[in-house]
Amino acid sequence: MAGDCKKEREKRLRFSVIGLKHGHIYGMCRGLIEAGAELVSVYDDEKKLLEAFERVYPAVKTACSEQEILEDDSIDLVAGCVIPYQRGDLGIRVMKAGKDYFCDKAPFTALDQLTRARETVKETGKKYLIYYGERVHSECSVFAGDLIKEGAIGKVIQVIGLGPHRLDAKTRPGWFFEREKYGGILCDIGSHQIEQFLYYAGVEKAQVVRSQIGNFAHPEYPELDDFGDVMLLGENGATGYFRVDWFTPDGLSSWGDGRTVILGTEGYIELRKNLDVAKTSQGDHLFLVNQEGEKHYQVGGKIGFSYFRNLIDDCLNRTETAMTQEHAFLAAELSLIAQDQAVKIATRNF
Amino acid sequence: MAGDCKKEREKRLRFSVIGLKHGHIYGMCRGLIEAGAELVSVYDDEKKLLEAFERVYPAVKTACSEQEILEDDSIDLVAGCVIPYQRGDLGIRVMKAGKDYFCDKAPFTALDQLTRARETVKETGKKYLIYYGERVHSECSVFAGDLIKEGAIGKVIQVIGLGPHRLDAKTRPGWFFEREKYGGILCDIGSHQIEQFLYYAGVEKAQVVRSQIGNFAHPEYPELDDFGDVMLLGENGATGYFRVDWFTPDGLSSWGDGRTVILGTEGYIELRKNLDVAKTSQGDHLFLVNQEGEKHYQVGGKIGFSYFRNLIDDCLNRTETAMTQEHAFLAAELSLIAQDQAVKIATRNF
Repeated sequence: MAGDCKKEREKRLRFSVIGLKHGHIYGMCRGLIEAGAELVSVYDDEKKLLEAFERVYPAVKTACSEQEILEDDSIDLVAGCVIPYQRGDLGIRVMKAGKDYFCDKAPFTALDQLTRARETVKETGKKYLIYYGERVHSECSVFAGDLIKEGAIGKVIQVIGLGPHRLDAKTRPGWFFEREKYGGILCDIGSHQIEQFLYYAGVEKAQVVRSQIGNFAHPEYPELDDFGDVMLLGENGATGYFRVDWFTPDGLSSWGDGRTVILGTEGYIELRKNLDVAKTSQGDHLFLVNQEGEKHYQVGGKIGFSYFRNLIDDCLNRTETAMTQEHAFLAAELSLIAQDQAVKIATRNF
Repeated sequence: MAGDCKKEREKRLRFSVIGLKHGHIYGMCRGLIEAGAELVSVYDDEKKLLEAFERVYPAVKTACSEQEILEDDSIDLVAGCVIPYQRGDLGIRVMKAGKDYFCDKAPFTALDQLTRARETVKETGKKYLIYYGERVHSECSVFAGDLIKEGAIGKVIQVIGLGPHRLDAKTRPGWFFEREKYGGILCDIGSHQIEQFLYYAGVEKAQVVRSQIGNFAHPEYPELDDFGDVMLLGENGATGYFRVDWFTPDGLSSWGDGRTVILGTEGYIELRKNLDVAKTSQGDHLFLVNQEGEKHYQVGGKIGFSYFRNLIDDCLNRTETAMTQEHAFLAAELSLIAQDQAVKIATRNF
């Protein structure tokens, strides 16, 4: 206890927000603030979005322009959630202004944006961090990583992900349905899945061996992919498959019955991220089966989100403990490749 | 009740068994006998296998040769479970002897066997029935088909199957590890998965868009595929993905945590076929989520196996109500194509 009393106040990471285009920004801010960062200021070009944000964070300063934030030398990091096709360029401006950048996923909508971001990271020494929330902000997903590191299922052979999402079309802004602006389903919600494959299977290089997209039931939004799936093959032999879609039914007590199944040589793990369907609407379930038996863990509130604390430390100390730059970019790159190469399923006669 | 008393004794289907090489033959016999067929005689070239069969069915006549059964004109159908690479040719002999053939899966190990079987079906007018037990002998799987037909999840977009199996290598005969004899993992346990995709998604024509096999952890059996996965695309736009493997851990209370996830435009179904992991070792769980809500059904003992009754009627009446010949052959054909085209995953550095 004496030790705690003497603990020095640590240097706090000061951050601002540019872009409130998706609710993810609230998760990003919550993660950073809970881990000790200080929210300083915010900018968005839509008054309504700003007012909503100010209601949640009444102490925040409202900047008059993006420039005002970029020129504030007291700011270490900018958390950004502009429209996806603008995210890469915002990141470049942020890094060139001498700050790290924490970007919502999808972090890019085209490969040239990624190329330029990679160059700017090299030039500036700054970070282009990406919020792959379906792993880093999901306690059962974090726990899965811990178990794998401990060897609970042997070597990872395969990662399967199911990432259904509720469309709720009426609540979505126009850009959500414009291909050039949102980037396509594999690029968008698919990027989470690819990041998880790379992480759990310890993959540092991979190829997209097949990717598909389709619009099965939303002809009113012709540029929406309501379905997509991808097979990946890691250089280490590990394989990945995922399906993402916008078909969560109204009757589900969550926005999506997200699952991850990780097959190892000595066992497997199943994550039921957001609920245990028809049993409880509480999320964060992990099922572990190995040579010892079958176990069920409900880990909500028990694991925490070390990612954010590590991210803050990484920014302050110029380390890479939360997630390496290359890992974050590789997941983005593979999502873009999967989207570019995707076979569009002919659903005319469906 | 009076009606029941007056019920005429129906003509019974008389069947024999040739080949006891896999325990599936007991499931095939049980299904037929429960549905009213009469087991007459059995032949296998291994005395130990015959003795075990006679213990279960003490009234059965033991034939001295395959020929004795083929020449018995009182026999309508032969249920066969010889070694997979011999199954096609046995079927041809059975059909040419004027009987229908009920074959364990995998029904073939090479495409030329299928071609010859197709020709013989045409020539003889007899049936080459295939025991895709993971659907037709699984009550939750049958129930899923009923729900889909009722429109419970709208139109089927995708079927995902996970078919892990316990290897139990010491209990397996030598042919189980010889590629030419067992046919490969996609051809073998993969055929169940393909049949389910075709059935649930109402697919009459499909292509294998990617298939992979690997041996990740069994170098002592170099011809064993311990892993395989496949993506299928139906002509109607429906997509399929499955993974099969021999990695069921010792700690699982079942031989495999078989799952099927069927995504529709209006909902989805999940099957937990053999157990509800870490909850109950009882199987036959169906989870239905649609616009109305989330439901869990445990249907063991409640649905039955209409396939066998229909199969018997089809043999007696020359109809196709249990499963069409083309459907059974198409599932087999796609399994063979998937196996032939499979990319062998390089697992040297795994």
